[in-house]
Order: sequence, then C-alpha cells, then structure tokens
Amino acid sequence: MLPADPGTRSIARDLLARVEDLPIISPHGHVEASMLELDTPFPDPATLLVSPDHYVTRLIHASGVPLERLRVGGGTAVEPREAWREFAKAWPLFDGTASGYWMRDSFEHVFALSAEPSAENSDALFDELDAKLKSPAFRPRQLFEDFNIEVLATTDDPLDDLAAHAAIAKDPNFTGRVVPTFRPDAYIKFAAAGWTERVQQLVDSAGDGLAGYAGYIRAMENRRQYFVEHGAVSSDHGSRTAMTLRLGETTAAELFEKARHGKASDADADIFEAHMMYQMARMAVADGLVMTLHPGVFRNHHTASFNKFGVDTGHDIPFPVSYTEALRPMLEDFGTAPGFHFIPFTIDETVFSREIAPLAGFYPSVFIGAPWWFLDAPDAMLRFRSAVTETAGFSRSSGFIDDTRAFCSIPARHNTSRRIEASFLARLVAERRVSEARAHEIIIDIVDAAPRRAFKL
Amino acid sequence: MLPADPGTRSIARDLLARVEDLPIISPHGHVEASMLELDTPFPDPATLLVSPDHYVTRLIHASGVPLERLRVGGGTAVEPREAWREFAKAWPLFDGTASGYWMRDSFEHVFALSAEPSAENSDALFDELDAKLKSPAFRPRQLFEDFNIEVLATTDDPLDDLAAHAAIAKDPNFTGRVVPTFRPDAYIKFAAAGWTERVQQLVDSAGDGLAGYAGYIRAMENRRQYFVEHGAVSSDHGSRTAMTLRLGETTAAELFEKARHGKASDADADIFEAHMMYQMARMAVADGLVMTLHPGVFRNHHTASFNKFGVDTGHDIPFPVSYTEALRPMLEDFGTAPGFHFIPFTIDETVFSREIAPLAGFYPSVFIGAPWWFLDAPDAMLRFRSAVTETAGFSRSSGFIDDTRAFCSIPARHNTSRRIEASFLARLVAERRVSEARAHEIIIDIVDAAPRRAFKL
Amino acid sequence: MLPADPGTRSIARDLLARVEDLPIISPHGHVEASMLELDTPFPDPATLLVSPDHYVTRLIHASGVPLERLRVGGGTAVEPREAWREFAKAWPLFDGTASGYWMRDSFEHVFALSAEPSAENSDALFDELDAKLKSPAFRPRQLFEDFNIEVLATTDDPLDDLAAHAAIAKDPNFTGRVVPTFRPDAYIKFAAAGWTERVQQLVDSAGDGLAGYAGYIRAMENRRQYFVEHGAVSSDHGSRTAMTLRLGETTAAELFEKARHGKASDADADIFEAHMMYQMARMAVADGLVMTLHPGVFRNHHTASFNKFGVDTGHDIPFPVSYTEALRPMLEDFGTAPGFHFIPFTIDETVFSREIAPLAGFYPSVFIGAPWWFLDAPDAMLRFRSAVTETAGFSRSSGFIDDTRAFCSIPARHNTSRRIEASFLARLVAERRVSEARAHEIIIDIVDAAPRRAFKL
Repeated sequence: MLPADPGTRSIARDLLARVEDLPIISPHGHVEASMLELDTPFPDPATLLVSPDHYVTRLIHASGVPLERLRVGGGTAVEPREAWREFAKAWPLFDGTASGYWMRDSFEHVFALSAEPSAENSDALFDELDAKLKSPAFRPRQLFEDFNIEVLATTDDPLDDLAAHAAIAKDPNFTGRVVPTFRPDAYIKFAAAGWTERVQQLVDSAGDGLAGYAGYIRAMENRRQYFVEHGAVSSDHGSRTAMTLRLGETTAAELFEKARHGKASDADADIFEAHMMYQMARMAVADGLVMTLHPGVFRNHHTASFNKFGVDTGHDIPFPVSYTEALRPMLEDFGTAPGFHFIPFTIDETVFSREIAPLAGFYPSVFIGAPWWFLDAPDAMLRFRSAVTETAGFSRSSGFIDDTRAFCSIPARHNTSRRIEASFLARLVAERRVSEARAHEIIIDIVDAAPRRAFKL
Repeated sequence: MLPADPGTRSIARDLLARVEDLPIISPHGHVEASMLELDTPFPDPATLLVSPDHYVTRLIHASGVPLERLRVGGGTAVEPREAWREFAKAWPLFDGTASGYWMRDSFEHVFALSAEPSAENSDALFDELDAKLKSPAFRPRQLFEDFNIEVLATTDDPLDDLAAHAAIAKDPNFTGRVVPTFRPDAYIKFAAAGWTERVQQLVDSAGDGLAGYAGYIRAMENRRQYFVEHGAVSSDHGSRTAMTLRLGETTAAELFEKARHGKASDADADIFEAHMMYQMARMAVADGLVMTLHPGVFRNHHTASFNKFGVDTGHDIPFPVSYTEALRPMLEDFGTAPGFHFIPFTIDETVFSREIAPLAGFYPSVFIGAPWWFLDAPDAMLRFRSAVTETAGFSRSSGFIDDTRAFCSIPARHNTSRRIEASFLARLVAERRVSEARAHEIIIDIVDAAPRRAFKL
Repeated sequence: MLPADPGTRSIARDLLARVEDLPIISPHGHVEASMLELDTPFPDPATLLVSPDHYVTRLIHASGVPLERLRVGGGTAVEPREAWREFAKAWPLFDGTASGYWMRDSFEHVFALSAEPSAENSDALFDELDAKLKSPAFRPRQLFEDFNIEVLATTDDPLDDLAAHAAIAKDPNFTGRVVPTFRPDAYIKFAAAGWTERVQQLVDSAGDGLAGYAGYIRAMENRRQYFVEHGAVSSDHGSRTAMTLRLGETTAAELFEKARHGKASDADADIFEAHMMYQMARMAVADGLVMTLHPGVFRNHHTASFNKFGVDTGHDIPFPVSYTEALRPMLEDFGTAPGFHFIPFTIDETVFSREIAPLAGFYPSVFIGAPWWFLDAPDAMLRFRSAVTETAGFSRSSGFIDDTRAFCSIPARHNTSRRIEASFLARLVAERRVSEARAHEIIIDIVDAAPRRAFKL
C-alpha cells in the first residue's frame, strides 16, 4: 500500500519507517470499556469478526445473502460456524475494499492465519481462529498491549456511571489509558427511541432539582462535567445535518415541551438539534471538551431491515451536506474562543476543499476531521489530503481516527493510515514540493502530534 | 492509454491481454435495429460520423462554427463534404477528449485511414472514407461480426412493434443477438411533445379496454411484457431527477387526468414521473426487466438551438442530483425484492462515493452504473473506480455501457474501457492491494461477467 | 513541481522549456495601477508580504496568533518587524500549501534570500529584505520588466477616473500594458456599504440626466464605455450566486426604488443582482467587454473579525454553487451572441465536470475560468484539467489567472501554473493520449494563446 513509482516508494518507505512503531492514539471509537475492564475472552470468530461489523455484512448482503445467515443484530438463525462459512465464501467480494485491507492485515499480523478465507478452508479456519481466540494471548488486555495502544476513547451514554473506566484507571495491572466520550444524541434527537423517558431520567438524576428545559440544560452540563472528571476529552455528535442555531431560551424551552408532549414535527426536531449543537459548543468553551460532529447520514435507510435487525446493520447512507452557512451561528460566537476545539467530519467529499479546509484555515477552533466511514480507505485518504493540504497545510487536521467497534482491526486501520500519509508526503517530496527534512518532521506531526493537539491529549 | 509508470504499465498490459479479445456485450445503447435488419450501407462520412454525433458537433460549435455547417438535425445547408471540412479543420479541438480518443481509434482500427484529419487532407480523406463505406466490408452486419459483438441492445418506443428485432432474430444469415429496450419517457413526462396523443394511442392499443389511468398502467404492463417476449432485458428511464414516490391510485389518476386536460404544473409532472419510476420498479419485480435510470440532465438548454435543430444537439447540461432520499420510497419496497435489478447512472460524480457505492453496497438490487456521458472517458473512469471500489468492491458494478448511437465507435469505446479497467487494477496490484492472481479473475469479471450479471444476460 | 515518474518528468521538462520564458499575461488581478504609475518603493517586508495577504494571515491566525499581531486591516498594534517574526515562526505551517509554494519561489527567484524564514533568522531576514526593497532594483516598474509582464489588468471602481492608467499609457518611460477592469459589485449589491450614496453619485455623474433606474442603467453603460476607452478588456462580478434573471423594466425599477428606500429584503437583493448580471451580459454584447463571474463565496463569515479588521481578512468561505439553471436566462439570450465572452469561475470543484465543461463545450461564449482562489494550487489545478479536458478539450479555457494583489508573487504563480500544465500534458503524452508534436502546440496554446483569445488581448 505504497506508491507504485519506485523512487516515490522508496521515499515513502523511509517516511513510514519513522512512524510505524509509534504508539496508537485512538481518540474516537466504539470499543466497550467493559471489555477491557473485565478482559473477557472474545467469542467465536463469526461473532467477533463478522456479525457485528456492518462494513462486512452489508457487502455480503448485497451479494444476496440474507442478514439472518450472518447472525446480524444478535440473531441465532444459523450457527456461528455457518455464518463464518458465508463470510469465507464471500471473501473475494472484499478485494479492493477498505474492509478487505483491514481484514487481510489483521488475519496476517494479529491472528497469523495460515491462509486467506475461502469456501474450501472455511471450517478449518474457523477452528484455527477459534482456538486462538480462546488462548490468553488473544485476551483484550494482552492485545491492547501488543497493539501498542496509548490512548483509547470509548463512546458513552451521558448517564453511564463510567464505572468501567474508573475501574480500569485504578487497576494497577493495566496501564493503558481508556477514556470515555460524551455522546448525547439519544437525549437530543426527538425521534430517538424513548426520548421522553430518557430525558426525564436525565433531568431527574442530574438536573439539580430544576425541571423542564432548564433542568435538561443543567443536567447536560453536569453530566459533561462528570465525564471530564472521569477522563473524557471530547463529546461526539451524530446530528442529521451540520446546522447550528442560537435559539432564545423561551423558544428552545417551547420546542422541548412540544416534543415532550409528542407534538414536535421533523422540522422542530432539526431546529432543536441545531440549537443543542450550539449549546454543546457553548458548554465546550466552558468545560474544555473537544467537540466532534458527524453529520450527513441517513440512518436506517431500509425500514424492513431496521425492524428486523436494528440499528447499524449496513444501510446508513450519506447525503449532501454543507458547513459554511450551517456552522456560522456557532462559529460567530465561539470560533475564536480560547481553547475551543471543534472537529467536523464528513462523508461528502465535496466539502473538503470547498468548505472544511477554508474554515479550518481561518478559525483556530476548527480542526479537519480525518476521512470518515466510507472514506477511511487508501484512495479516499489520498483524495482527502490532496483536497485539504493546499489550503490548510498539515497542521490543521485531527490525525487519524479509527472510529471502530472492531477492536482487532485497530492496528490495521492505523497502519493503513500511516502508509497513506507516507505515500502522500512522499509524492510531495518526489515532486520537490516539500523538502525531505521537513517531511521527516511532518510525518511524525500528523501521525503523533496532530491527534494529541486536536484532542488535547 | 495505459499507466506511465513502467512497472504498472507492464502489469496493465498483461491484464489487458486477458480481456482485449473478449466479445463485446453492449446492454444499453442507441443503435437502430433496422440498420442491422436491412444491413443498409452507411451514408457518406459526414452524415455517418459528424452530423448526428452531438459529442462532436458541440465542441465544433463552441469554437464558433454554426450547427448548420455541420448539417445537424438533418440540415442540408451545406454539402456533406463541406461539413466534413469543418470537422477536419476542427480536429485539433478533440485532443484530450473522449471523442478524440474514440475517433482516432476507429480511424485507425476500423477504417485504417492513411492519416489523421486536417484542413489540408480533408477532401482526400472524405473520398477515402466514402469509398470504404460503400464497400461490402463496411456494411453493418459485417462490422457487427468484425467488432465481435455478442449482444447489442437498442432503445425503443413502447409502441414499437419490434419487427426489426424479430426479423433479425429469425434470420439464419445473422447470428448476432440484438435486443430491444423499453423506454417509456415520452409516455411518462407530461411535457413530452404529443404526450396526450401518445398516451391515448398507448391506452387504446394495449390497455385491454380499460380507460384512463387504469388503462395506462395496464398498457405499460402489457407493452413491457411484449418487449420481454421479444428479447428485452431492461427498461430505461431518463427521468429529470432521481425522485421516486408511491402515490395512491386515486392521486395518481387525478394527476394523470389533470395532465390530459393540459392543467398539470411542472411540479405535478415531477411528482407523476417519480410515481411512475416507482411503478416501473413494481412492474420490474413482476416481469424481470432490469431497470436503468439516467437522471440529472437539463435537456435542450438553449431553446433557439432546440427550435432550429431539435433534440440531442449538444446542449443537454447536467445539474446536481442526489439519490439517497430520492430512491428511498422505491428501495423501501423493492430494494431486497428477489430478482429486481436497478442500475442508477449519473453525470454528477459527487454521488459515486457518497451515495451510489453505499447503496449498491447494501441493496442486492442496486448495481452501480458505469460512468455515463461526459464521464465515460479515461480519467473520469479512473476517478469512478477510485470512488466506488473501496466501499463496494468490484462485484457491484454494471460493467461498461457504451450508450452510443455511433455504431462504428463501439469497439473504440469498449477498448478504452478495458484499458482503463486494466490500468486501475494494475495500480492496485503494483501497490500490493490486490494480488496478481485475483486481478486476473477480477479483470475478466468486470469486463465480461459484470454486464451479464447486472443485465441478466 | 513536476511529476515523480522519471519518464513523465522528462516529457514535462521538455514541455515546460517551451513556455517558461514566455511573457506573463495577467488579465485579471488586484494590483493597484497607481503603484506602477508612481513607481513607489515597496514598504517593509511585513507590510508588503504578510499583513495584506489573507492567504498568509488566515493560516497563522488559525494557529492561534491574533490578527492584530500581523497588522491585518492596517493595524499598528505591533511593529512590522514583530509581525514578520510571527510570520517567520509560522513558516512551517505553509508546507504543502499554495502560499508556501509561491512564497518560497519568490524568496528564491525574486528576492534571492539567503535562507528560508525561521524563528531564528527572522530579524536578519527582515533586514535583508528591507534593504532590498529600498533599492531601485525592487521598484515596481523594474520588477514589472524583470517579471516579463506583457499585460496586467487591475480591478477598478466604475467611478474611478482611471487617471493612473492613462498616465501609464502615455508615459514614454514605461512600455508595459496596464488595463483597468470594470467591477461594479458595490453598485449592484444592495447590502454593499453606502450603496444608496454610491448609486446616487453614479447616476448623477454618468446618467445623462436620467433619474432612478433608467439613469442607473444608462450610467452603467456610460462608465463601461469609459473603461473601454481606457483600455479595459473585461468586467468582473463577485455575485453571491450564479443566478441570472431577465426582469421586466418595471419590476427592476421597483426593486431598485425599494432598495433606495431601505426596504429591500435579502431575496430582493439576490433577484436584483441576478437581473444585473443579465444586464451586464447584454451590455457586454454591445460594448465587447469580456464578462467574468466569481460567485459562491460567503464573504466575511466571522462578523467580529470583519468589524475589527474589515474585508478580505481571511474568512471568506465558499459554499455550493450550480450554474446550469442559474446561467440559463442569460445564455438563452446571449450564449451564441457574436463576440460575447463569458468566463465563470468557481471554488466548488464539483461543477467542473458536471456543469462548466459541458457549458463551455457547447456555447461559443463560455470559456472555462482557471481554478480560482483556494483551487489555484498544484493538485487542484491537476484535478481541474482532469475534470474539464475530456469534455471540453484544451481550447475552451481562460488560461491562467493569477487574481492577486501580491505583485511580487505573480511570477511564482504563473510559473506554478506552467509547471502543472506541463505535468498534466506530459502524463497524456506518456499514456499515449496526446502526441508529443501536438503537446508542443497545446502547451503554447494554453499558456499564451488561451488568455489572449478568452480576454480578446
């Protein structure tokens, strides 16, 4: 995964050598803290590597295999071994895909598998993997150490007591840093399942006795503070669009009550969400949490699949987004606020050169989110660097974000990213656009210093 | 048209060698069946290669030559030889363009011309070409065989009796497969010239005696069936946007009657078209025709040119489209229907990574349409592969579609596509992202198996 | 800044050699004519190279340095030497950016600096530069000659008397051609500071005694004519969107009066601007001025910075634009008008392949504006060529536009462009898509003939 041109490849190899052994910093992702707290052995290969990974199941589904046969959504229609067979048979579908690169890399470097999956070796490979997964060498804490992870951020419900994080932090036998992330989507989106009850619980437990909207805002502030005290460095937001709005107190409270009475429209929900994004920025200025935004995805596009298998089952589909006008109310007020860090992500590549690089090239608060989701793949990462660098240079990006729940794929993802950063920089060196000496500094900066800087680590 | 890097080029050459002699499969295009039925000799060079090709006339027009001087729209203001002179003089304009590549390729490989066109050799070249076009070696059926075409799809009016297709099919002297395509745009778009009369004729001739909207729907079903019986594998739709909608029977019938009374607005027309796209999908689930969609083009942008020269005269201009929300009503109901194949095309490149690859990476019904129109050119095809592959791999695309009315350019277009597929894959091999062994399989799959799979051939 | 692949690089070098000594043609930019009239020595290095260049100050600001410390907007909070220190310290931020390339190039080739800026050498470099700037060799006219500039266009207020241009034209000691450009934004946008007074002054001074809207239109025509007589070749328009509209006389006059009474809405302003774009095209058909359009930028995104430092201080942020429907009213009426030249620019890359190349590939009046602002950088220029060439060839583009107020960066910008044009063409030659002989002609055409053709020079 380095450039084909021999001269450029040799520069890239040299650059890669300077960063490939650096520790992994993972400031945003979806691994569960309890996994590391309890050091629970992983389940069988299908339950670990196939069923929960919607990158993987979606493409097999597209080829005609029902999601049941992959045990998606916790299903048990078939045995794990049978789900693994579907995966092994489908292995050629992943050629050229990001998932294919990560899986091949982890099969080779994490699991040292004897062969690539195929219909023929499916059962043997299942047994080989299963045996490994049962051995102590493949327990989460051991892998955490083997992967050379320095920081791993989880993503957590605002009412989570963060006991797992606390336990890890004081466990003398484990030195890794595992930090929570404040993710309040389900308390902000009127349409989230059980919104009314959740919000009531939030206000009751953390609203300092205040009721209604005032209690809601207070509780958000309090729970953010609780997260800060438990090591959190950021809050994360999966808003529908990138819109931000500063509503008056009264208007916001009215929308809030409307929703509590089940009378809010879709437009109301969008407006309230935009208002809360503004509020989250306001709170971030006060408590120092970095704010990350992941908008522009139509969640659960296929209702029948959602009803049967639940969320995150492969049919979240991006749509066009724009940041310039949407973020303005927030940036007008907090764009130059000392210490405020805001990191927008996107799956709509068109905004990289048009909007995000120009914004991050002026506002000290705005850092360019690394290519997200469908874009965290070699070619897309090269397009990203090409789109943002000429406007914003190398200093304004977030550093690589793996954003994964697939723990075993973490080294493969970071390794891919490092190779691509080296490849991009190597081309600039080969074209005499960056000196070799500066490239040596830049590669370390973007791999190691950038995430520390953007996420205040 | 292979990569500049020597190592990559040699891999590409090897890959190309595996597919360059495979038969041509052309599942969507605009050649007339009667041409092959009657095996009519081609007309003079200008009337064959210049006047009807809006890719060619548009760029000459942009340079300042009036369309009259190119005999566009059947005009006879100048002699063919004079139109050819304009073309020959304009030949340098085509450097670097898709049309330039195709023409140079066919001048060399189909017509074995002695020189490239120029102001100086214009008349001599006209005579040289004209003589060849009059010889039996350049009759349509002979070229069909020389081009190694296995399947060629035409595009046909729903009321076409398909007599030419039937005659070809039973002609013992011709073994090529020529299949019709059901293209009902002119019966769906309220604004189409003569819509009311067309629709009346459709209902009268195929509505099983039913009147109004019910007869209209029945007639569509019946004519699709007629096409199926005459070998059709797909229906094609040039809708304005990608919108689909499921209207109630009554609402749809009301819109239909409104239009019949000349009272429908532009918005009504869009809604009815969206409804009919949904209906076409419903019918496709029943009758098995593959559904292809070509939205997002502002047809006849320059009214004065349209009035004088008619449709397809070079001023159809793309505009932004989005598929995620637009296709949802249809995909909600038919996205996982067994046997349903839906192929969206686009000239708005932004949707490749953002929408189409994610959709085709989940829905078994969705195949990624090959780069269309302004995008079926070397660089654009490379951008396309780069944009879709990391999300959807190689298995979800339609295979190359030439979509042309320029019969003699068919081999050049397929040849260009094969070279670009080989170039893209060669880069992945050179970067160690795909193994050489798998690349050997993939190149054959995308050139040969993909169109057969997507179009059920 | 040539391709990494050795074979392609050697072709590129050969192509570059054919154009690197050609004179600079700069048909659109923001240098002041008075600078060349008076041949005023340049100020100190910070005041010349840092404070007024929002490409430079924005990125330093993003790194956390307040704009005051860079003396932005004419500020004097710190000494120039101190502002230069901030710049020198921030120098590594510019690696990989367009500004970095231009500055390094001019430090080396214009100023022959002994070292690249750094925190350590800041003061020494300031003194070295300052001394040079005080010497006769660095006076504007001498540099104009050294830079080999043949034509330089300025950008001017419609009521400017163009005395500086006249003085330059008749000065026997200066042979360079310096032409004005008619830029009426501040008289068209209702929201422009002092619009009412400006417009009154325009009508009074050039309306031939007519009042109101009629006087306004007449005055525009008259002032354009005045510009034509003083050598102008184009008018330039920074409209918010690309919209054009043909309003009736009465409607336009009503909007105009509404605005004069302070009652126009934002929507009114957009409509009037669209109408005036149509009017500008109408006038261009009559008086022959080339019309350039620069839409799609949200000006002064951060109000606090605007209030403190004024316009052009680094927070103009692009947003999505579309041209297909927006330009239609104008192109319907003037798209094929003899002699009309219209050049749309964009920072939204998505329109290059989707809209601009198709428009310029049909309408003789439409030329493709060179990559603008954030896009006039090496990778972006390569993406531009890749996006437009396959549809529109090489004959339809405007040639390179430096669009700069940074006089000393002009050779660096043209040099960058020539290297990139050579690189793009070299790849096509290496891939056997363009012959070497034709490439020799094309490189001269796009560097030298294209701007003369598009701007009627």
